[in-house]
Amino acid sequence: MNRPSQLPQPLLAVLAARFGERLSTSAAVREHHGKDESSHAPMPPDAVIFARSTEEVAAAVGLCHEYKVPVIAFGTGTSLEGHLLAVHGGLSIDLSQMNRVLAIRPEDLDATVEAGVTRKALNAALHDTGLFFPIDPGADASLGGMAATRASGTNAVRYGTMRENTFGATVVLPDGRVIRTGTRARKSSAGYDLTRLFVGSEGTLGIITELTVRLHPLPEAIASAVCAFPDIAAAVDTVIQTIQLGIPVARIELLDALSITAINRYSKTSLRETPTLFFELHGSPAGVAEQTETLQALAAEHGGMDFEWADRPEDRSRLWQARHDAYYACLNLQPGARSITTDVCVPISRLADCIAATRADLEASGLVAPLLGHVGDGNFHMLILVQPGDAAMLDKAQAFAQRLAERAIAMDGTCTGEHGIGLGKRKYMPLEHGDGALSVMRAIKQAIDPDNLMNPGKVLPD
Amino acid sequence: MNRPSQLPQPLLAVLAARFGERLSTSAAVREHHGKDESSHAPMPPDAVIFARSTEEVAAAVGLCHEYKVPVIAFGTGTSLEGHLLAVHGGLSIDLSQMNRVLAIRPEDLDATVEAGVTRKALNAALHDTGLFFPIDPGADASLGGMAATRASGTNAVRYGTMRENTFGATVVLPDGRVIRTGTRARKSSAGYDLTRLFVGSEGTLGIITELTVRLHPLPEAIASAVCAFPDIAAAVDTVIQTIQLGIPVARIELLDALSITAINRYSKTSLRETPTLFFELHGSPAGVAEQTETLQALAAEHGGMDFEWADRPEDRSRLWQARHDAYYACLNLQPGARSITTDVCVPISRLADCIAATRADLEASGLVAPLLGHVGDGNFHMLILVQPGDAAMLDKAQAFAQRLAERAIAMDGTCTGEHGIGLGKRKYMPLEHGDGALSVMRAIKQAIDPDNLMNPGKVLPD
Repeated sequence: MNRPSQLPQPLLAVLAARFGERLSTSAAVREHHGKDESSHAPMPPDAVIFARSTEEVAAAVGLCHEYKVPVIAFGTGTSLEGHLLAVHGGLSIDLSQMNRVLAIRPEDLDATVEAGVTRKALNAALHDTGLFFPIDPGADASLGGMAATRASGTNAVRYGTMRENTFGATVVLPDGRVIRTGTRARKSSAGYDLTRLFVGSEGTLGIITELTVRLHPLPEAIASAVCAFPDIAAAVDTVIQTIQLGIPVARIELLDALSITAINRYSKTSLRETPTLFFELHGSPAGVAEQTETLQALAAEHGGMDFEWADRPEDRSRLWQARHDAYYACLNLQPGARSITTDVCVPISRLADCIAATRADLEASGLVAPLLGHVGDGNFHMLILVQPGDAAMLDKAQAFAQRLAERAIAMDGTCTGEHGIGLGKRKYMPLEHGDGALSVMRAIKQAIDPDNLMNPGKVLPD
Repeated sequence: MNRPSQLPQPLLAVLAARFGERLSTSAAVREHHGKDESSHAPMPPDAVIFARSTEEVAAAVGLCHEYKVPVIAFGTGTSLEGHLLAVHGGLSIDLSQMNRVLAIRPEDLDATVEAGVTRKALNAALHDTGLFFPIDPGADASLGGMAATRASGTNAVRYGTMRENTFGATVVLPDGRVIRTGTRARKSSAGYDLTRLFVGSEGTLGIITELTVRLHPLPEAIASAVCAFPDIAAAVDTVIQTIQLGIPVARIELLDALSITAINRYSKTSLRETPTLFFELHGSPAGVAEQTETLQALAAEHGGMDFEWADRPEDRSRLWQARHDAYYACLNLQPGARSITTDVCVPISRLADCIAATRADLEASGLVAPLLGHVGDGNFHMLILVQPGDAAMLDKAQAFAQRLAERAIAMDGTCTGEHGIGLGKRKYMPLEHGDGALSVMRAIKQAIDPDNLMNPGKVLPD
């Protein structure tokens, strides 16, 4: 990456005056801010600033507005959809130094944080409050980034996603003005839902610099379990019945045999290498005991084997750490591989069909792609392993991913349950939303960011 | 109301050709469609059509677009904020004949309905499925209207509001195009959240003609209870502790002594006339038993008296019917009275302060206003009784309501938790949202409805 910075010199000068050493145009820093964990080729921004306050973000965005320079927010760089690639160059605003937990309000079950606070940092700060923040994408992502991509994770089936768990946000608009969306009231009917508009807008309408999130009481009792199944269909049927019976599982995760193999290798576990469900139950001791019995009976009906409960916190942590590391474990199956990660989510009644058709397609394709997913929500990922540079394999993987997205959309599902649209999934937007709904999204983008300066080239197809 | 219809004759002619007897310009029909349950003076539309399909709504809206005539959607006419008043005249589109439940999908816990289906009609249709739809504003409102106003009710503390329980909608845009927002996937990160944008937009961005809502499994066990308290503070403290302990109450409602008096008179009950909490617990038998014990102990700590449990379904129904009729019961306290109904919602840590300050203000004002509310969410209503025609009393009531809204906003709450902005609360929008956020709302309105034809004069201040 030797392309020189293309920012206008007067803009660079004023940024340098304001940010000093916290402005960088070095190749290394730009490169770091132009790549994520996806298989997209890196596209570095022209410069990076490390912001420390909403005021600084507002100043930088205002300057970029004046010079008509694109702006991209950067959190932890753990996007899976190329969100932070500078496809039109511009300034990357790194928010990782905005890492202060501004307020924890146990009495209101909420907390206000700067956008760069990560989910683990927030939970560490909640230590001793009896509360926790449940949303857990695989990576230790920043809460600003998680809000911007409407992230979720393993707990969403019980606790919802960033959509349900963000009460309000401080947002820097494309012209540098600062607004606050929402109040701390639990519910409101006061006008258009700007919070939900900015959540999931992937930095294309403004930059979230602070947010107030919902906290939840730590459950009195927690039980985790692993259960192996003879085949995927049996595991999926167990999930479907669990949801339909209204058992309030906190987590219910499916991993296929290949994912388990990957985990055994990476995390030194010794799980039976067949399709497996990871469960977690939260509640009162009596409630959890009741749910445990029901779940165990359900699993047994579907041929569940080796049902193993982890009651001790350290065993549970090890189990879920292994689950969270599954992405890296799967990448590790093939040295040097990157993953094209699919993210469909379908109505649960269609989940078994969708997985069966997808696995048949996979076998026919000759690709390697472990399956894992938040199946309680109908959401699953295929991690299609590709070798960078193998163009034929990449094409085949893209075609498979496209068929999967189209299959999910045809089942009244979505091409992305939690990763976002970013760069690569824009092509599915017309099919999923229709031209009319897409035209409304375009009208909103045009109204709020008429110069198309906020993370241009993302979400909306060209 | 003798103002003749002002619609352009050619528009009337083409509407007449299309809708026949389902177009009306009669004074009676127009008057019925120009008033709600608020204290606002009626403002009838110029004509009313009774639509039977999305296509008909789209055709009518398209025609109005051509003639630049305002359009107002009408469901059951139970708005409390003047939402359906034709402040600029125009066509009222009555959706009450769009009352088909289009699909119930027990396996996915969702249902798709036409906008005119009421909440009770949906629950009747769910009979025998083991599922229910929990959102319950006092009135038997239409689901379209409930979505448009982001309604909630007594169950929101456990089940959320229309925001969380609407998966997607069919919407007729201002130019007559039809879009669908959202899919049936439980979660999605695919682009801007149009569902949440139209939910709560009060018909100012488009007309919701169909929607897919979330259903919930009927709890295995339900327990309802009534508990009287020596004073409001004791009742509120019980609520706050209940929420902070994470007890998953389904309902927790506060009624002050005057509301109980009103209910006793109206519903022929014989409750002790002191501040009272109505509870409901949902869960497994063991779970409900556990919660019952905890709640009873909490209430006792705060001086709760006459803790009375209703386990039989008919006793529970009578109890909650009385609660739902409380609005009418309160109106009935003074023959001929209308109510100016406040709807503030504050963070729960501020609830006791907010209620105390408001009651002090009420006493000083000399007004009569029973208090009742969904206090688990921090939401409560003062039903300020006014005699139509008593201008001095009306002024005093408005001033009191304004002080209350400002007090709630100063506590980081909202002027409306569930009724919507409509006509009368527009004046609080700048204070609650700030000029910047309000300008974003205006930009969205302008982008989607540039001719200001959709329910003009609502939500956004002039």
